[in-house]
Formats: sequence, C-alpha cells, structure tokens
Amino acid sequence: MLFNQTMILRTIRCRNKNKPGVLGRLLTIIGQANGYVGEIETITYGNLYAIRDIDILCENEQTLQRVLQVIHDTPDVEVLEVRDEVLDIHRGGKICSQPTHPIKSIADLRKVYTPGVADVSRALVEKPELSEIYSSIGTTVAICTNGSRVLGLGNIGPEASMPVMEGKAALMTQFVGLNAWPVLVNTRNIDEFVETVVRIAPTFAAIHLEDIETPACFEIEEKLIARLNKPVMHDDQHGTAVAALAAVISACKEIGMDLKKAKVGQVGLGAAGLAIARLIKIYTGNSVKGCDRNEDAVARFRASGGIVSTMEDVLAVSDIVILTTGVKGLLKPSSIRKGSVVMALSNPNPEIDPDAAEQAGAAIAVDGRSVNNILGYPGIWRGTIDSKATKIIPEMLIAAAEQIAREAHDDADLLPSPLNLMVHRNVARAVARAAMAAGIAQKKLDDDYFNNP
Amino acid sequence: MLFNQTMILRTIRCRNKNKPGVLGRLLTIIGQANGYVGEIETITYGNLYAIRDIDILCENEQTLQRVLQVIHDTPDVEVLEVRDEVLDIHRGGKICSQPTHPIKSIADLRKVYTPGVADVSRALVEKPELSEIYSSIGTTVAICTNGSRVLGLGNIGPEASMPVMEGKAALMTQFVGLNAWPVLVNTRNIDEFVETVVRIAPTFAAIHLEDIETPACFEIEEKLIARLNKPVMHDDQHGTAVAALAAVISACKEIGMDLKKAKVGQVGLGAAGLAIARLIKIYTGNSVKGCDRNEDAVARFRASGGIVSTMEDVLAVSDIVILTTGVKGLLKPSSIRKGSVVMALSNPNPEIDPDAAEQAGAAIAVDGRSVNNILGYPGIWRGTIDSKATKIIPEMLIAAAEQIAREAHDDADLLPSPLNLMVHRNVARAVARAAMAAGIAQKKLDDDYFNNP
Repeated sequence: MLFNQTMILRTIRCRNKNKPGVLGRLLTIIGQANGYVGEIETITYGNLYAIRDIDILCENEQTLQRVLQVIHDTPDVEVLEVRDEVLDIHRGGKICSQPTHPIKSIADLRKVYTPGVADVSRALVEKPELSEIYSSIGTTVAICTNGSRVLGLGNIGPEASMPVMEGKAALMTQFVGLNAWPVLVNTRNIDEFVETVVRIAPTFAAIHLEDIETPACFEIEEKLIARLNKPVMHDDQHGTAVAALAAVISACKEIGMDLKKAKVGQVGLGAAGLAIARLIKIYTGNSVKGCDRNEDAVARFRASGGIVSTMEDVLAVSDIVILTTGVKGLLKPSSIRKGSVVMALSNPNPEIDPDAAEQAGAAIAVDGRSVNNILGYPGIWRGTIDSKATKIIPEMLIAAAEQIAREAHDDADLLPSPLNLMVHRNVARAVARAAMAAGIAQKKLDDDYFNNP
Repeated sequence: MLFNQTMILRTIRCRNKNKPGVLGRLLTIIGQANGYVGEIETITYGNLYAIRDIDILCENEQTLQRVLQVIHDTPDVEVLEVRDEVLDIHRGGKICSQPTHPIKSIADLRKVYTPGVADVSRALVEKPELSEIYSSIGTTVAICTNGSRVLGLGNIGPEASMPVMEGKAALMTQFVGLNAWPVLVNTRNIDEFVETVVRIAPTFAAIHLEDIETPACFEIEEKLIARLNKPVMHDDQHGTAVAALAAVISACKEIGMDLKKAKVGQVGLGAAGLAIARLIKIYTGNSVKGCDRNEDAVARFRASGGIVSTMEDVLAVSDIVILTTGVKGLLKPSSIRKGSVVMALSNPNPEIDPDAAEQAGAAIAVDGRSVNNILGYPGIWRGTIDSKATKIIPEMLIAAAEQIAREAHDDADLLPSPLNLMVHRNVARAVARAAMAAGIAQKKLDDDYFNNP
C-alpha cells in the first residue's frame, strides 16, 4: 500500500520488556491512536528486553504527538528515540554518479581518458550514430522540471523539487537500469524552458517532463516533441493515464464489466484528467463525458473529442467515474451510481473514501494511493529506448496499461506491486512490441529480447 | 606515463610456445617496430603454450600495421585476436547513475518516494539552504561543453565530445567522490550557452567548463561567474595552469632555481598559455614575457599585465620557457638556453622532444604527457565544494599547485601519480584552507577535515 504524500513517517526506537503480549499491546495502542505501523526491525533481543525500530505513519503532526503520548503511557515500553529516517536517507541525495569501470591503473586511465578517449571521439565524428552505443547518451533519461507543480505542494521551485526528481531517477535506475539525471530548469517561461531543454538534449536519449504546471505543461511537451527527434513524455499526464487505464481495465475484468461498451465519465480535466480521458477514448473508441470548473480545461477537453457535461450528469450516467479534481470529499455517497466503478484519484485526499464508496453501492472503488505512475514510466522508457522509438504514441501507452493490468495476478489488488521488477520488464517489452508494430521502432528487437527472463 | 591522445591502443591476444625467451623476443620485436608495450595479462599458462593479452600503443595506424606484421612473422608466436578494448570499455558509457540507497521494500519506497519525499520537499521550501544537504545538489558538478575545442580534435560538436566529458566525470567521481554529470550544450553562441547553463544551474553545486573554443571560453566563464553565486571554472585554462605551475615549482626545486626571481617566458597565449602566464605572475609577483602570432591573444595578454615580446627574445632571455603553441617541433635545439627549464606542453606533439631539449642544454625539460590537469580539477572541486566557496580565486589555484608539487615525493618525476588518491585529498585540503584564509569559505572546516587520513 502506498501512502499519500502528506503523511508523516517516523521511526521510533522502543525498548520493550521481553514478555509475551507486550509488542502486540503496543501496536494495538498505536493503531487506536490512528498511527499506521510500517516496517518493524528488531535491533537487540535479550532475555529481559527487546529493542525494536518501528516505522509509524500518521496523518498529521497532531496524530503523531498523540501516538507518541500513548506509547509513553504504555507499561513495559520505553521510547529510546524518535528518528526522521526520511530526512536521513535524503542526506547527500538519492542518486549519484558512478564510473562504469573502476579506474585503478595507468592502463585503465589510458583507456577511459587519454589517449584512448580520442579514438572514441574520432569514431563518433565519423559515425555520429555510434554515440548512442559508445557513450551514456543512448541509455540516459533527463528528468526535467521547473518545480512549478510538485506533488500536493504546488509551485515550490526547482531546488525544493529535487528530492522528487531524485526519487523518480533512483526508481528508474533501480527498476529498469536506465541512467536518469534530474535537470532543474529555473524558468516558468514556456519558450525559455523549451529552448533550454532543446539545447542540452544531445546529452540524453529521452526527455521525461515532471511536475510542470498546467497549462504550460501541454505547450512545453508539444513544442519539445516538435523540435526534438527524441522521445518526450510528461509523466503527470501520460504516466498517470497509463496507471489509471490499467486500473480501469483491471477493475472491469474483476467485476465483469465490458470496458469497450461502458460509459466513462471524467470529473476534473486538469493535466492528468485530460490525459486519462484521451487515452480511454483511444482505447475504447468511445468519447468520454467530462466536466471541470475551469473553462480552459473544458475547452481543451472539447477540442480533444470529449463530451462536455455537468458533474451531476456525469455521475448519474457513467458506469465508470474517474475523479481528478484535488477536492477532498467532493463525491457524496448519495451520488454514487449502483454497480459503478469509482476511481477517486486525487492525492493526498481522495474525492471519496473507497470504503465509503463501496458501501454506497459502487461495485469497486479505489483511490490514488494504489494508482501510481511508478508502475508506468520506468517500463515505458525502457521499451521506448530499447526499440529506439523517436516518439511515444498512444499505442505504446495502451500496451503499457494492458500489460500492467495483466501483471495483477493477485485478485486482491487491481494493480501489481511496483517492486516486482518483472512487471517493469514486461511493460518494456509490451511498449517495444507496440513501437515495432506501429513501425516507429528504429531497432528491430529479436526473440531473445521478448522471451528471455 | 600518460600517452598522448593521437596514439592508437590495441589489445593483442597472443599464443606463445611456452619456452624461455619467447615473450622477451616478442616484446623486443614489438619495440623495434616502434610499438609501446602496456599492460600484459596472462590468460592461460599451460605446459605447451601461454596465452596473453598484450596492450600495444602505436603512434599511428601505419605503425600498428607494422607491429602486427612483425608479430605475425615471429616464430613460436600466434596472434589469436586484435581487440580495441578502448571501444569496448566505452560501450554504454563510462558514467552511470546509481541510487544511493537500494529500494527493495515498500518501506524503502515510502522513504525515497511518496509519502516521504514530500516531507523533504516541504523542509526545503521552509529552509532553501537545506537543499545542499538533503539532495544531490550540494555534491554534484556539471561538466559543461559545446564540443567546440576537444583534445587535439577541434570543433567536433557536443555528441562526439561525450566520451571526453564522461572520462572527466568518471575520474572526478573515482578520485574525490563527487557526483559529476556531463551536460552537452548544443550552441556556439556565447549568450545562448551562458543562458542555458544559468537556467539549469540550480541542479548543481558547481560548473566545470570543458573544451570550449577560444575566445568564447573567456567570455562564457566571465559571464557565468558574474551571474551565478556558485563556483565556475574552465578547466582548460585554470586546471592546466595549476598543473603547469606545479611542474614549474617542482622543476625549480629539483634544479635549485629560485622561481620567484627567475625570468619566465610564455610561447603561445591561447586559453591555456594565457592562464598559465597569469597564474605565474600572481604566484611570483613578476610579469611574464610572452608572444603569440594571434593579435587578439597578444592583446588579452597585455591587458592581463604580461610583457609582449618576440619569440626570439623570449627564448633568449627566459630561465623558464613554457610552450603551448600546438606547433610540433617549433623549438629548435639551437634555441635552447643553457640551464633553462623547458616545458613543451602541446599535445599530442610537443614543441620539442624533452630528451632533445635536455641534450641541447636545458636543465630540465618535460612535455604535456606528464603535465596533465587530472592532477588538478578533482581536488580543486572537492576543496571548493567542501568549504562552500562560491568562487575559485587564484589563491586556491596556487594552493593546489603548491600541494601537487609537494606530493611529488619521488625524485624521478616532477609530478605525482594521479592514481594516488591521497594526492587529490591533500589538494582538496589545500584548496579549502586557501578559501578559508581568503574569507570566502561559507563553511568552516574543522581539524578533522584537515588531519584525518
């Protein structure tokens, strides 16, 4: 379960008397005070005492204080330390550079530096296309942002957004082995942003755009796609759309609904909502009905082939309702259509609590915690780069969504765990196959690529 | 010994009859054909045969072919394979990204991604200065180039220069543990280059400029220094100047010349030559006499306080002559002043062969192979970043040069081996100490920093 981003995570080191029932009672008390218990690590286990690090998640600072108070009041338990491990783990950053070959002898130095390096540069002058093979260019993704719309935090600027970009980069490297480097671009001017990324684009195989405000994100992505002969993707649009479509496919399968015949409604037409509606229209062939209070958003939706309506109408007629409004509690239980699929994706606070939605008659309901785009972008990039596609087309996004849904073997969850590396590998394969089928792959991958484990 | 960058390096796998004298004869024959022998690795060592990988360096393709021919003609020796290991080692690039913490559990994911990351971003919004601590920003150097003046290859453009930038980055990471990422900037327009680097500068602690043509490199460096509150250094100027000054200090010590009283002459006033002359003037307090055929270069030299003269005069009166002209064989043995120090630094082909210069009466002579700026920039950056200096001043460069000279314990060589990591650490300490002494260090480093091994 992925928790939302306003929760507070602390690691509490407790010394318990080592007798039966103490740990159970402690965890029960934490739960009663509304603390979620995460990882538990045993530090020492003696005859008299056991010391454990317990990760605790709380909705807010007040809850955390209450949790700490009840632990303090628990007999046989002593709090030794309260640590912010999140901050600790961020010290020095989450992504670093590494030489691919250690340089330990003059022989190494000759190969990676002078005189060897000149040989390689000369080879690249003669055959520029070799730069993808004999340098990091072919396997490196830039994670570009101006920090103008970060998580639930808004316009926090480039530097403060770095931890998010590093997280994206670290996950990309860990999950699919691509190099990924954050690039903080210090401008909110669209053309300046585009110009900057275009000028440094030779460094990279692909451009991943992240956390850029609406509507600038649309124009920036369009202009970069037009100017670069390299794939460009704004993850908040397309990565989110892939994860949402995967969840919808999975939900329909679980309740036996025919997605291609279902009426789909979209409440909230910002960057994510619009991208979800567009991808579902392409996938099903049917227009999505949508609404938003922002006139520009509505105009973009209409231009993309959506059917503009009111929220009341969308809720009343849709078999599947997807909400991306950012408004907590917007959807009242009384507005839930019986047997419908409800996806209340706003983070950190969904439009309706999934349990409440199901109690009110929804066949299935999820929130944004389980529909996360880390299931999408790593595999999408790996497949795009492996097949040397110069752009990402909807067929590739749909292939990714279908594959993610297929990977949810466990009936209990709509979507698979992002920590299962095979999920990302299979998404990459599906994306590469779609690029090849569409004729935009510049590299023909062979059976080994698709079949080897 | 560092070889120059136009030499060709090949790995030759030979199967020799395993009897005394075969390897010796083979290496002798290779030497007679003008091949330099590098690393020798024994692959198998049997009763009848030994198989070895022998690295061979040749001045040019013709020499390589002759070497291969003489090996082929050698009795008891069979060439199994000729490999270009340089190209192999560059496959996929020499620098990669790595997560600093492996992400293997949902607990990890919560800390490096949501919800944990939002905590950190919020902390950075409240205290922007924390971004240096809780992200990679504080320890990451951008290696920026437009590829307009690369090694001996000239204007080869951004992509083809990538192997050089990766080499610089890999060495920086390996030698001093800083993150270093190449940034290829696709423009030769000065203001566009500056604007681009300024916009992405929030990503980095420091800007290392590399392989940018003259005179653009001067203006780019000046403008970036003026616009950024972060250290900026063009390595081809200042890194080279540090290495050259270190060699001059070391040479003077070896022959008992008083550098502060010596007459120094500079032949060739390009980016490197001008920077060397300027640094020596600051170090000794005395103007350097210099010459160049390029009028703009001469004007810059005059403006920096240099004494403009002719090459004949410079050679006739200087105790120390430094040549950075790029003209092979420019300096005739007959022009060598008896007892002088001659530094013929042009790569790949020096103005005079050091042996010939010493035979003609020079007290000591070196070429560019042993005066390499990889001795300088890693420690300079580490010390600058550790002390949080926002600029690099001549005092820091001089401290680096003096320390490098001090590290040359072995009397046989003027400069220490760049593979000795203590050299870089001690250079960093010297640079940090100089920054603190000059009052431009924003961080006061304590005795632990300077004394711990």
